[in-house]
Amino acid sequence: MIENTKRTNNNIEIWSKKITYENVSRKGEDIKKGEIAVKSGTRLRPQHIGLIAALGYSEISVAQKPRIAILATGNELAEVGIQLEENQIHESNCVMLSALCHELDAEPLDLGIAKDEIADIQEKIQIGLKIADAVITTGGTSVGGLDLVPEVVNTIGKPGVVVHGLAIRPGMPTALAVLDGKPVIILSGNPVAAIVGFEVFGRAIICKMLGMKKEETRPTVEASMTRKVAAALGRKTFVRVKIIEKNGEFLAEPISTRGSGALSTMTRGNGFVIVPENREGIAEREKVTVHLFANIEA
Amino acid sequence: MIENTKRTNNNIEIWSKKITYENVSRKGEDIKKGEIAVKSGTRLRPQHIGLIAALGYSEISVAQKPRIAILATGNELAEVGIQLEENQIHESNCVMLSALCHELDAEPLDLGIAKDEIADIQEKIQIGLKIADAVITTGGTSVGGLDLVPEVVNTIGKPGVVVHGLAIRPGMPTALAVLDGKPVIILSGNPVAAIVGFEVFGRAIICKMLGMKKEETRPTVEASMTRKVAAALGRKTFVRVKIIEKNGEFLAEPISTRGSGALSTMTRGNGFVIVPENREGIAEREKVTVHLFANIEA
Repeated sequence: MIENTKRTNNNIEIWSKKITYENVSRKGEDIKKGEIAVKSGTRLRPQHIGLIAALGYSEISVAQKPRIAILATGNELAEVGIQLEENQIHESNCVMLSALCHELDAEPLDLGIAKDEIADIQEKIQIGLKIADAVITTGGTSVGGLDLVPEVVNTIGKPGVVVHGLAIRPGMPTALAVLDGKPVIILSGNPVAAIVGFEVFGRAIICKMLGMKKEETRPTVEASMTRKVAAALGRKTFVRVKIIEKNGEFLAEPISTRGSGALSTMTRGNGFVIVPENREGIAEREKVTVHLFANIEA
Repeated sequence: MIENTKRTNNNIEIWSKKITYENVSRKGEDIKKGEIAVKSGTRLRPQHIGLIAALGYSEISVAQKPRIAILATGNELAEVGIQLEENQIHESNCVMLSALCHELDAEPLDLGIAKDEIADIQEKIQIGLKIADAVITTGGTSVGGLDLVPEVVNTIGKPGVVVHGLAIRPGMPTALAVLDGKPVIILSGNPVAAIVGFEVFGRAIICKMLGMKKEETRPTVEASMTRKVAAALGRKTFVRVKIIEKNGEFLAEPISTRGSGALSTMTRGNGFVIVPENREGIAEREKVTVHLFANIEA
């Protein structure tokens, strides 16, 4: 709005004319003086970076990336790239968990592989506590004779293990400890269970360390199950599904599980359906919420 | 399944006993010999990296990151960090578009700022074509006297501009050109229109250059509009909304637009609703598909 004056019959007629400011931006039209442009605890997306630049800031203070030290444990593990001997498998959890950390803007540090031996696990976790803000371990957390990690963690300091055994599937043997005031996330050696355990503890802890007010969740879509799936009563079951778009509707196709550790259930699928503890499964055509861990192909 | 033999009454009774292979993974249970583990054209997520490592590969061939040269044009633009003179604004599209490229795993290259002058624009686009696989420009694409970019692009080579003017809002002056067999994406200087234009052309082109079979879309959620919004008939309108979760349901709250260029509509919101060309708006409580450009807070 602008105001203009026009003299008529010796009177002053004040008239206002609406101007369309097409292609013209006015000062303060976007952010007003004193207004908060980007709240602290916001993950900076391209649009935030654009807004910060538009306000003239070439540098801003951001949260330091939490450093997460990652240790794989197990006598059966050989480094990737090395020829396997009998009864060995390639260690694959460290790079996978590193990539999960990167996705959340945390900085992973590789502690390598520890044997199923008290001294080796102890030493490597202690290095992790020195160089990082949190430690993640995989393997050695079930109830077998060589499952030493929770026990070893308790020898390092107080309070040690605070939770061991979660009502989730997969990921039941997941544990959480605190040493030197730093979280130690003890994950299963099974890669799918490791991802699920990371989703439960790792994501929440990293979001907290980044200064976010609330945990950032994965994007979700509503979908209809293409067939029924069974789940364990008394446990939260993470069912892997593949989302298919059909006639503008999302269908969730459960991924057949050939083996408990089958990581291909996650590369063939693109989301989780979480079946609550009080349900024995999901019915065919039931509406579900799918938590996406990969994009849906158009 | 294992087979065992037991001698009874001089006959050989073959019996089989089911063994539960709990905590035991068997060879080939995940990926069978000869099976494709990860199809080409797949964006590698943590689970793919884990699977590739588990198969023993310490190195694999991946698509080269497309290099995207980005040029801002406009006499009114001053670099971020510099004190503004009268009628200047800080250039903010380059860093924003660079961040959008990074999100899609492309490598942005900064061509800086060109004045609204034929020679300057020409020279900088030519540098872009030399060093990159595609060029993005912002500004100078409307119909004003200083809107020189499409005209200048046509002086550089053939076929030049192939599309100019899209039935989208914002982003109407977006254009697409081809020079030296390389795409030149000509975006509006208005930051929101630049993002929308990038979504339309940039995303599809980068996905194609990465070797993806299909364009990867943003995650979407279904939501119910909290109030009606108007849209322009004959144009695809990108309405910015904020998703709010209420009683397990997603609500889409339209973001009030104070100005056409207001980038804060994208920092205050977290998604787009695309109103089709044949609709004059969306009704209150209407179910819509929201394309997410930031995560939903839990």
